[in-house]
Amino acid sequence: MLRKKYRVGILGATGTVGQRFIQLLENHPQFEVTALAASDRSQGKAYAEACVWRLAGEMPTSVRSIKVAPPEPPLDCDLIFSSLPGEIARAVEEGFAHAGYPVLSNSSACRMDRDVPLVIPEVNHEHFALIETQRRARSFDRGMIVTNPNCSTIMLALALAPLHRRFGIEAVVVTTLQALSGAGYPGVPSLDVCDNVLPFIDKEEEKIETETLKILGRLRESSIEMANIKMSAQCHRVNVTDGHMAAVRVKFTRPASLEEVTEALASWRSLPQEMELPSAPERPIIVRNEPDRPQPRLDRDSSKGMSVTVGRIRPDGVLDVRFVALSHNTIRGAAGAAILNAEMLIALGYLA
Amino acid sequence: MLRKKYRVGILGATGTVGQRFIQLLENHPQFEVTALAASDRSQGKAYAEACVWRLAGEMPTSVRSIKVAPPEPPLDCDLIFSSLPGEIARAVEEGFAHAGYPVLSNSSACRMDRDVPLVIPEVNHEHFALIETQRRARSFDRGMIVTNPNCSTIMLALALAPLHRRFGIEAVVVTTLQALSGAGYPGVPSLDVCDNVLPFIDKEEEKIETETLKILGRLRESSIEMANIKMSAQCHRVNVTDGHMAAVRVKFTRPASLEEVTEALASWRSLPQEMELPSAPERPIIVRNEPDRPQPRLDRDSSKGMSVTVGRIRPDGVLDVRFVALSHNTIRGAAGAAILNAEMLIALGYLA
Amino acid sequence: MLRKKYRVGILGATGTVGQRFIQLLENHPQFEVTALAASDRSQGKAYAEACVWRLAGEMPTSVRSIKVAPPEPPLDCDLIFSSLPGEIARAVEEGFAHAGYPVLSNSSACRMDRDVPLVIPEVNHEHFALIETQRRARSFDRGMIVTNPNCSTIMLALALAPLHRRFGIEAVVVTTLQALSGAGYPGVPSLDVCDNVLPFIDKEEEKIETETLKILGRLRESSIEMANIKMSAQCHRVNVTDGHMAAVRVKFTRPASLEEVTEALASWRSLPQEMELPSAPERPIIVRNEPDRPQPRLDRDSSKGMSVTVGRIRPDGVLDVRFVALSHNTIRGAAGAAILNAEMLIALGYLA
Amino acid sequence: MLRKKYRVGILGATGTVGQRFIQLLENHPQFEVTALAASDRSQGKAYAEACVWRLAGEMPTSVRSIKVAPPEPPLDCDLIFSSLPGEIARAVEEGFAHAGYPVLSNSSACRMDRDVPLVIPEVNHEHFALIETQRRARSFDRGMIVTNPNCSTIMLALALAPLHRRFGIEAVVVTTLQALSGAGYPGVPSLDVCDNVLPFIDKEEEKIETETLKILGRLRESSIEMANIKMSAQCHRVNVTDGHMAAVRVKFTRPASLEEVTEALASWRSLPQEMELPSAPERPIIVRNEPDRPQPRLDRDSSKGMSVTVGRIRPDGVLDVRFVALSHNTIRGAAGAAILNAEMLIALGYLA
Repeated sequence: MLRKKYRVGILGATGTVGQRFIQLLENHPQFEVTALAASDRSQGKAYAEACVWRLAGEMPTSVRSIKVAPPEPPLDCDLIFSSLPGEIARAVEEGFAHAGYPVLSNSSACRMDRDVPLVIPEVNHEHFALIETQRRARSFDRGMIVTNPNCSTIMLALALAPLHRRFGIEAVVVTTLQALSGAGYPGVPSLDVCDNVLPFIDKEEEKIETETLKILGRLRESSIEMANIKMSAQCHRVNVTDGHMAAVRVKFTRPASLEEVTEALASWRSLPQEMELPSAPERPIIVRNEPDRPQPRLDRDSSKGMSVTVGRIRPDGVLDVRFVALSHNTIRGAAGAAILNAEMLIALGYLA
Repeated sequence: MLRKKYRVGILGATGTVGQRFIQLLENHPQFEVTALAASDRSQGKAYAEACVWRLAGEMPTSVRSIKVAPPEPPLDCDLIFSSLPGEIARAVEEGFAHAGYPVLSNSSACRMDRDVPLVIPEVNHEHFALIETQRRARSFDRGMIVTNPNCSTIMLALALAPLHRRFGIEAVVVTTLQALSGAGYPGVPSLDVCDNVLPFIDKEEEKIETETLKILGRLRESSIEMANIKMSAQCHRVNVTDGHMAAVRVKFTRPASLEEVTEALASWRSLPQEMELPSAPERPIIVRNEPDRPQPRLDRDSSKGMSVTVGRIRPDGVLDVRFVALSHNTIRGAAGAAILNAEMLIALGYLA
Repeated sequence: MLRKKYRVGILGATGTVGQRFIQLLENHPQFEVTALAASDRSQGKAYAEACVWRLAGEMPTSVRSIKVAPPEPPLDCDLIFSSLPGEIARAVEEGFAHAGYPVLSNSSACRMDRDVPLVIPEVNHEHFALIETQRRARSFDRGMIVTNPNCSTIMLALALAPLHRRFGIEAVVVTTLQALSGAGYPGVPSLDVCDNVLPFIDKEEEKIETETLKILGRLRESSIEMANIKMSAQCHRVNVTDGHMAAVRVKFTRPASLEEVTEALASWRSLPQEMELPSAPERPIIVRNEPDRPQPRLDRDSSKGMSVTVGRIRPDGVLDVRFVALSHNTIRGAAGAAILNAEMLIALGYLA
Repeated sequence: MLRKKYRVGILGATGTVGQRFIQLLENHPQFEVTALAASDRSQGKAYAEACVWRLAGEMPTSVRSIKVAPPEPPLDCDLIFSSLPGEIARAVEEGFAHAGYPVLSNSSACRMDRDVPLVIPEVNHEHFALIETQRRARSFDRGMIVTNPNCSTIMLALALAPLHRRFGIEAVVVTTLQALSGAGYPGVPSLDVCDNVLPFIDKEEEKIETETLKILGRLRESSIEMANIKMSAQCHRVNVTDGHMAAVRVKFTRPASLEEVTEALASWRSLPQEMELPSAPERPIIVRNEPDRPQPRLDRDSSKGMSVTVGRIRPDGVLDVRFVALSHNTIRGAAGAAILNAEMLIALGYLA
């Protein structure tokens, strides 16, 4: 018997991540896009008129005639994916949650709120338990706000999770080389990155250093105890369209050989894999042995952009082990992350 | 009274660094190029025929008609600048030194030899004292081999030197984003860096981790005691023509406030500055306060490519302090480094 | 009843186009790769060892263990796809044809030979009739050499064909902006295209100016009468991974309104479309109306890289009409072109 | 005796071209910058605070403390350089001219006005005679509006001028590959040009096709008779910081051998060269014979960015001759163009 699909509304539908949501949800077995909203001048127009489609391939025909609505309830849908800009996200998302919509947000606004789950399904799906706390605290009825981390943090936390579980992590030093699409469109001016690197991404280092601790933290009663890990992040923007890269060093609390580290990463499977969620990659982490991998152009699309590729696992002279990680920043790092969260919520019965 | 100029021969004259030597030596007050040698098919041709000039601006007319010689003595010159490829550099450079030529080498071949000075004049000119040891050990008469470090190492060691002196350095974690010209020509295939990053530069991490310790080491009797610093380097190639960038974290042995670190970097002057050597920048390190500097395209040419620009000095959650450094990899990082070494040797009387 | 697949050998299997052949032939309904050959040091190794896979995604498992052979008969296959470098292609391809193999070549060596078909199936499949002439002239028995045009020429000729048929073409002025993959690997040095454009691609302008005339020429008895069109080509290499672009002006012999030109391009279907060949795109030419299309990154993969996208159709002040064309240079412009030729040959009974 | 310098005000001072004006006017023998104006939020701040300096090297100290004024008279200066955006330029520039200021404008607003000189000093300085007409028509007293062409047009018209004079030009087909800085800052979004080309620059093709005819036109009594040349322009944006390139075909009215064309370009000197104006390059056009020149990164700075480099002069199969031209779009193509116009006006007595 075919279950009815969830009807989905997308906030920020004309932006870079909004377009990625639409692309990833085309032919999704559990969701169909029925509402599109944006905060800009596109309101009232059909999506095909309102949006300059900037992904390779055509705009899915199923959304072309949907009229772009203002980002406020009611919207003709069962749940909301939000990729609104940080400044307006909080008020809008709370408004939808109050109106009874589950909101899966890629925005940074509420991520660090004590009662908001910040989840990567493979890493900390048990944090969804905060939803009850949240509903009580905020007087939400059926609504909820569930967030996924910042694009760089997701990649990092996915690579750290199996290591933290097995060896305990004491300190992490991460240096990112981030893609242009992470800044949206128009985003980074071309003169800033042609023959150049920007050593600065606003608030990114702070996000990585704090969000990681929440994701790797433990649920204690009805709140998250932040992980006790020393964090250091330096972030750079490079002239790459898609695919964030991170050079990572890790210090463990227990001894870990290179072989054990490699094995812990490569063998890792988690609940989304066991439950075979539609967007879950077979392997959350793909370990490559070539000396010059991962590379953004070659590895960003592995497992349809949902796997993190790790390479260059080596002993480190200051911390214990170092490696290079890479993932697709608008798929696993944004739209795909929120969709996988939604699939996990369904599987765990939160969207019944 | 005008001192006669030193007559200079350049090995590897047709390569990227060889061309930079020629460009920087045009109108130099102490040197004039009188001999050019290369190991390739260009031998026997006039330089203007042998070499495809790949720097902006014209090939200096003074070298156009010099006939390219094979890289073996004798050459019509008083001293040698070498930018030969690593594989052949050792034998050739030793041959010239045996024949009585002082050789200032940018090649990696002999850098870590116990009796070979590896010098950045601002940092460790006293290591030139190894020349005597070297001459005895290798039976050189007037000849000598003096090396400058790898392009990334120079930038790093210059930024670390004033900090090490003042606060003591215990550990360094450095992540580089390196320019294309560091690999010479043809060097990096364009398909490897267009919309991409390479997380691998052959032997680069090892060079940074070892050369830095020698440069910051102490001369004890007639050898260098390596600095006792834990080192970690991860290296990346990005799509930038010139200008290596490094994200650096440092752990000190003594307490150091951000202000003290900033001041130690910005106020640093050393012997080349005091002696006003022709190629010495007024300030070895330029500290910038903008949140998004240094940048390769904007900062690589500061002080004609001889200064290191440092920015984003911040406290670090794992080590003590972090910052971003940048310098021109074929000027301060290669040809300019060897030339400044030569100027320092003259000033100290080693080339009398 | 399932027809047995043709067993295919690939010459130049480790190169850029060779890899594309392998990728496109994975799961092809008519072909399976059974032999791989290369002229380089990879001979004797399993393909997985011999080849550094440089396309996004993984090397197909079906070819990993095939041992790389020298490019000479016999090879364990029914037909040959060749992407050998021009210098050695002629002798090798003739050798295989003499040994009875049909050779579908992407190399430039034999393209302009009077008895060699130079074919784009949509444009001039009737030129395959030269095969008979060729076999007589060269004493081939079952063997043959069939070529596809240069990557830029295919795109141009596809866009011109429906216009030539309908309005007659008198003159063509084409200016190309070509992608890096067209030069193979290592190909174009990154220093030549980072923050730069190269206004020169060796022999490319000549190829476009001559090959186009042969493709648009008529089969008269047993030879091709070259089309009587004045040609002008200027070629540039730009910093784009895949996707050749061409700015085209056309002068017609008969009057043609913009609407007629647009309609002639957009409505064009040809024999491969009618016969629904596996690699034939539904539409050989896709016309886009947005003012800023086509673009390489957005349009190169349309119809799996087999369609040419045309935009900016405008009246021209010197010739009659101008437009911009774009296609994937290693799919429609190389490997895909040869495969479509093979499919057409099968459909027409030439490979029975 | 030292002549007092002209005191200069710059409109649009914080923009890309505004910054270039300031850079080029540093230490200029005839001008000193005394006023800066901008239409944005920078008004009232010192320039050092108001402007993020985006050119390599430091902001000149002489302008750091100048307070940014609104773009309206009075300004503390003798003449005005304007690089205002097209939309507001006309009203502002007319306002200044009415108030008695000579305005040298890089904006497109008034270029095609019948009574406004559109001048490249080497090509058509005699068009300055329109100033009298203009003053009468617009009731300007000491004020005037003098314009320089669009960045691509300047390069093209400079290359065509000596050919038109000598051989007569009947038709021109030009295809441009234009740099990012031509669109200002933030200008082109990086996602639009990374691994991509844009085949569209708003109004650029029209500007080239019309402005060229005015520049090469003749002054007849008190107006310009447009040159009778058929024009065709196609424009593309490529991932290059500075340096516009153009592939040009020309049809002549009189026979012209390649040697004559080459000689006409290479030998050309004009009035600015004879009068040795400070910004005039020794040769307006530099002809290079290498098959792969000109290139943006190597040739844009020739003669401090004021020469056009021409290469690949070849016979053409459709028109008569073709070549590739290149020049620095914000120096010869913008700020340097206006400055050279001002120098020419001084030399001819128009600013007395």
